[in-house]
Amino acid sequence: MFLDDDFLLTTGTAKTLFHEYAKPLPIIDYHCHLNPSEIAGDENFSGIVEAWLGGNGYGDHYKWRLMRANGVDEELVTGHADDWERFQAFAGAIEKAVGNPVYLWTHLELRRIFGIETDLNRSTARAIFDRTNELLATPEFSRRGLMRKFGVEVVCTTDDPADDLHFHRELAADKTVKVIPAMRPDKALNVDKDGYGAWVDDLEKAVGHPVSGFSGLTDALAERVDCFHAMGGRLSDHAVDVVTYDEASPAQLDAITDKARLGRSLSALEVSQYRTALLKSLMRIYHDRGWTMQIHLRAARNLNSAMFAVHGADTGYDAMWDRPMMEPLTRLLDSAQTAGIVPKTIIYSLNPNDWLPIATAFGCFQGGTVQKFQLGNAWWFDDTRSGIRRQLETQAEQSLLGNFVGMTTDSRSFLSYPRHEFFRRILCELVGEWVERGEATGDIEALGRLVADVSYHNAKAIFTA
Amino acid sequence: MFLDDDFLLTTGTAKTLFHEYAKPLPIIDYHCHLNPSEIAGDENFSGIVEAWLGGNGYGDHYKWRLMRANGVDEELVTGHADDWERFQAFAGAIEKAVGNPVYLWTHLELRRIFGIETDLNRSTARAIFDRTNELLATPEFSRRGLMRKFGVEVVCTTDDPADDLHFHRELAADKTVKVIPAMRPDKALNVDKDGYGAWVDDLEKAVGHPVSGFSGLTDALAERVDCFHAMGGRLSDHAVDVVTYDEASPAQLDAITDKARLGRSLSALEVSQYRTALLKSLMRIYHDRGWTMQIHLRAARNLNSAMFAVHGADTGYDAMWDRPMMEPLTRLLDSAQTAGIVPKTIIYSLNPNDWLPIATAFGCFQGGTVQKFQLGNAWWFDDTRSGIRRQLETQAEQSLLGNFVGMTTDSRSFLSYPRHEFFRRILCELVGEWVERGEATGDIEALGRLVADVSYHNAKAIFTA
Amino acid sequence: MFLDDDFLLTTGTAKTLFHEYAKPLPIIDYHCHLNPSEIAGDENFSGIVEAWLGGNGYGDHYKWRLMRANGVDEELVTGHADDWERFQAFAGAIEKAVGNPVYLWTHLELRRIFGIETDLNRSTARAIFDRTNELLATPEFSRRGLMRKFGVEVVCTTDDPADDLHFHRELAADKTVKVIPAMRPDKALNVDKDGYGAWVDDLEKAVGHPVSGFSGLTDALAERVDCFHAMGGRLSDHAVDVVTYDEASPAQLDAITDKARLGRSLSALEVSQYRTALLKSLMRIYHDRGWTMQIHLRAARNLNSAMFAVHGADTGYDAMWDRPMMEPLTRLLDSAQTAGIVPKTIIYSLNPNDWLPIATAFGCFQGGTVQKFQLGNAWWFDDTRSGIRRQLETQAEQSLLGNFVGMTTDSRSFLSYPRHEFFRRILCELVGEWVERGEATGDIEALGRLVADVSYHNAKAIFTA
Repeated sequence: MFLDDDFLLTTGTAKTLFHEYAKPLPIIDYHCHLNPSEIAGDENFSGIVEAWLGGNGYGDHYKWRLMRANGVDEELVTGHADDWERFQAFAGAIEKAVGNPVYLWTHLELRRIFGIETDLNRSTARAIFDRTNELLATPEFSRRGLMRKFGVEVVCTTDDPADDLHFHRELAADKTVKVIPAMRPDKALNVDKDGYGAWVDDLEKAVGHPVSGFSGLTDALAERVDCFHAMGGRLSDHAVDVVTYDEASPAQLDAITDKARLGRSLSALEVSQYRTALLKSLMRIYHDRGWTMQIHLRAARNLNSAMFAVHGADTGYDAMWDRPMMEPLTRLLDSAQTAGIVPKTIIYSLNPNDWLPIATAFGCFQGGTVQKFQLGNAWWFDDTRSGIRRQLETQAEQSLLGNFVGMTTDSRSFLSYPRHEFFRRILCELVGEWVERGEATGDIEALGRLVADVSYHNAKAIFTA
Repeated sequence: MFLDDDFLLTTGTAKTLFHEYAKPLPIIDYHCHLNPSEIAGDENFSGIVEAWLGGNGYGDHYKWRLMRANGVDEELVTGHADDWERFQAFAGAIEKAVGNPVYLWTHLELRRIFGIETDLNRSTARAIFDRTNELLATPEFSRRGLMRKFGVEVVCTTDDPADDLHFHRELAADKTVKVIPAMRPDKALNVDKDGYGAWVDDLEKAVGHPVSGFSGLTDALAERVDCFHAMGGRLSDHAVDVVTYDEASPAQLDAITDKARLGRSLSALEVSQYRTALLKSLMRIYHDRGWTMQIHLRAARNLNSAMFAVHGADTGYDAMWDRPMMEPLTRLLDSAQTAGIVPKTIIYSLNPNDWLPIATAFGCFQGGTVQKFQLGNAWWFDDTRSGIRRQLETQAEQSLLGNFVGMTTDSRSFLSYPRHEFFRRILCELVGEWVERGEATGDIEALGRLVADVSYHNAKAIFTA
Repeated sequence: MFLDDDFLLTTGTAKTLFHEYAKPLPIIDYHCHLNPSEIAGDENFSGIVEAWLGGNGYGDHYKWRLMRANGVDEELVTGHADDWERFQAFAGAIEKAVGNPVYLWTHLELRRIFGIETDLNRSTARAIFDRTNELLATPEFSRRGLMRKFGVEVVCTTDDPADDLHFHRELAADKTVKVIPAMRPDKALNVDKDGYGAWVDDLEKAVGHPVSGFSGLTDALAERVDCFHAMGGRLSDHAVDVVTYDEASPAQLDAITDKARLGRSLSALEVSQYRTALLKSLMRIYHDRGWTMQIHLRAARNLNSAMFAVHGADTGYDAMWDRPMMEPLTRLLDSAQTAGIVPKTIIYSLNPNDWLPIATAFGCFQGGTVQKFQLGNAWWFDDTRSGIRRQLETQAEQSLLGNFVGMTTDSRSFLSYPRHEFFRRILCELVGEWVERGEATGDIEALGRLVADVSYHNAKAIFTA
């Protein structure tokens, strides 16, 4: 039955694995986009519409895209329309969305957090709107209250190297949910974007001294990594939408860095040289400190110029690229390997056509530490049952599933933690199928350990060390 | 049991959805390659070999390819050999074809239309040959008779803008099967092919006045769209085998158009500029009239030069391309979006590796109307159970399945309508699995509405408005 | 239950097909990398570690990759460490490897050959180490003894054209296992690699006369094909990691060949011209003799320069490419088709994203013989349940499954033959599902013939003719 105790658990093995091994474990969400100031503020939402839809360029673009697909006026999607009208429009989209992960997550959130078992559609919308609003006004439904309800033990936020992390200092007092900073130096890599120079200024403020040339930049980043490390950080993240590989001399890199800081435009080759060198410098920094590097490949961002002008980034106008990339990617890895600077690395690609090529490629650079490389979990557009299964199968078939660090929400929503339940059920479903078909041992304790490791212990060991 | 009442219906939900909601609905086949003159003529076939295999460059290339794969002499595949010998050779290929959609369609056609429950193989071929020939000689098995037997309510043919549509005028009298023209301006786009100039001459005849320059061409196409519209047309189609994007000024476009009309050769850039501009002009024309634009991407056509010289196009020598294309495709869509001219659009790709990138990309341009963009049904080489499932999953996971316009045969055969049954069963199978695993509501009426919408009502609403 | 009699046989039809039709048949392993001298020598292994892990650049790189993924020190992976320590480290990786084909193969080998039903993990490792070592010391566990135990009737080895095949002459006396040479002229194609000139010298020795120019080279290769043919050879193989297509005149080809022989460096265009022409010359040679040509596409080799320097090729540092390739591939096939020189061909790609494009493309060049083209079995990284299913589905959906020549191990291990059992079970599982869902006939004898053809008879007919 719809989202009942045994949903997705199609075998006896799956039921045992989920209920006895996976379900009781807390959540470690090691990659998300929650705002540390919001976590620290711990306010209640004004209601279900703020919690689910937000607005004005801030909120859950997954839901916005479904509403737009249903022809809903943008004023109801992200605008200042009345909450109830927006909620009705969302319910109208959900009616058509069977088979979409948002349909499933929405109903999971209603059930698990609000205790509402009714399907959401235009007829039931009013009652659900009223009841969720009522509950969201109570103290236990504050931001951190929601995280506690879901059993969240750790989240890693996504923070700029120049961030002073003062919200993380505040949050260190909360013993129920641990909030750890993770570094995302995208602004350092985006040497060709407006604001690069201003960002280096911010970095100078963060380190408290001038930053000059390419080596000055990498030294300053290393200082910031040390500072994040002192706050518990063990993880970085990088949006590498398009992979390229081009080498350059130190002098060339200094010249490129200086040019960029002055706001002068760079050639495509210069951009590639800078990014290649910076990625390698960062790899060395992470490697030396035992950090894990996340690389998110293939996002095609802000494709709708008109709407980007209105709403800015991360508002539902992104897709995935399809250019070949194994050659530059493997050159990057090989060059880092030769230099002995490869850190623990999680490679995600938004385009699942890449998963098998990537998993075979990083198999060439394993060694020295347990699961130095792994395939990142099914992410964003791939965060579906079929996507999660395919990622798990690829990690299992090309490497060691038992070492996988498991699920992240990659989410901007405080209500998105049922995705961990979703992931764990799919993991148990898959392993259960292997057992049922005779492809895996029936030793339930051994399988239970594997499921628990992937659901919790592996992430705990690496990211909270 | 093989093709019985419950074939593909693996759950109770699937059985209910198919038998109560999907099966009773008529067929709207909004994209096919039936010849309007043949529909109008309404003759009987000379026998099963004409109906199934045709010959001389005209017929079902799916079946021809299977026979060639089995080493059958071309004289038996497309030539003037004796009907019975050709039928035997086809039966010999079908014996080896378990798992091929032609195997399944062939047996569905035998069962559903001819009442023949025997497997086709070389031992049973004679009896089947005789019985089908006997039935095909009777009046109710005429071309239109077959369409009525299958419950076909509407078909959209594929027509050149210069076509005078006189067969459609004749066909308007038939109240049982509605035949609507759909415009396919491939000859307008194929500025680099022989015959472009002659085609513009035909277009001049169709509009009754001279056509000059690029803007004259688009004006004439708009006139023809209006003419199709008056005949019930609401739909166009475009073979965009390779996507490119290059802008040009109006003066450049006029110059390219004039050059092409004189039969002078164009550079690759000029061809791309012309095609980019023409696609955008067509988008505006469709947008202004509320039409739906179909784009069929990635066909690799006429790859066997020797056989192309003998048989011409559409005779089984096609495959699919694999170059990256998300960059030019999203530039085209973005540029049309900025201009405010994006019509309702169905994007098909022959290469299913593209489906997820495409579905995520068009999600960036949704809005203003219900399901402005959707992913075209699994088509040609993808028209298999696995292909249909993957297309439905992609549409569902990345957009709204409930808004999908459903199946087309894309066929040249009057016997191909069981593919709609095949599609509807797969849709019900998939939804049934979701329910069984607890991923979708058990509200059978809500699911029944969705299945009925996808099987019939959505297409009816858009294409027969 | 784990690897029991009915593992992977999820339907009654699958059980009948496997146990009655597939299982009893001998094995024809028409593509592998066993060393003919090792087969001829027929020695026993020193123990399970030599048999499973080998070492010093020679052994099963599938297993090495898993150990490296688990962070095992290279000394234990390929080095001179103590056997028992290496075995423990391997057991530690296998514990984490549920879902990996090596996990499955390892346990299949333990069960089928050694009669050991225990799961391999660090606790059970000692008993398994001792028992397998004990058995491997007995005469019936010699190299050829193992092949006999698995029911191997024929293997085709992979041999250089310049090889004198004297081990094959020795092996001709063994009536239980037939060992046939298959030609792999990679060194002839690798005109841009070190050692090309020396290889032509070897070829001169093999044919007993000087070899001059491009045509002299192809004449010499034809002589060697005739020599292989006399020894029973009917099959060749080609590693075409990257597909290109460029034409050249005979004079240009002679010049390129002479330049390469002198060790002078070639342009990328020259390399492509030479390879294009040589592939076409080889096609003609195979075509004229009724041979079958294998083409293995897309391997990305030796990506880790540091480890390549230590271990050399084929030691676990390979992956798969992702550049578009349908255009040069179809130009090559079209050009050969126009010349009337297309032999029977099996096309493998390491990247399964290619399988559907390739299968549709070769469908354009079928004809003249039964299944002139087919899709090679799921290979290397794809040799998993999901890979094998996808290959079988692609061959079935786009061509004729009943004509497929079936499985090869492509292996370097004498213990790898349970992969044929694995393949046959998956084939029966898939056909059983088709029957269960009503997509295929319930005529079990017809299906049994198909399964037997794919498991054995098709390969026997073509490769042992």
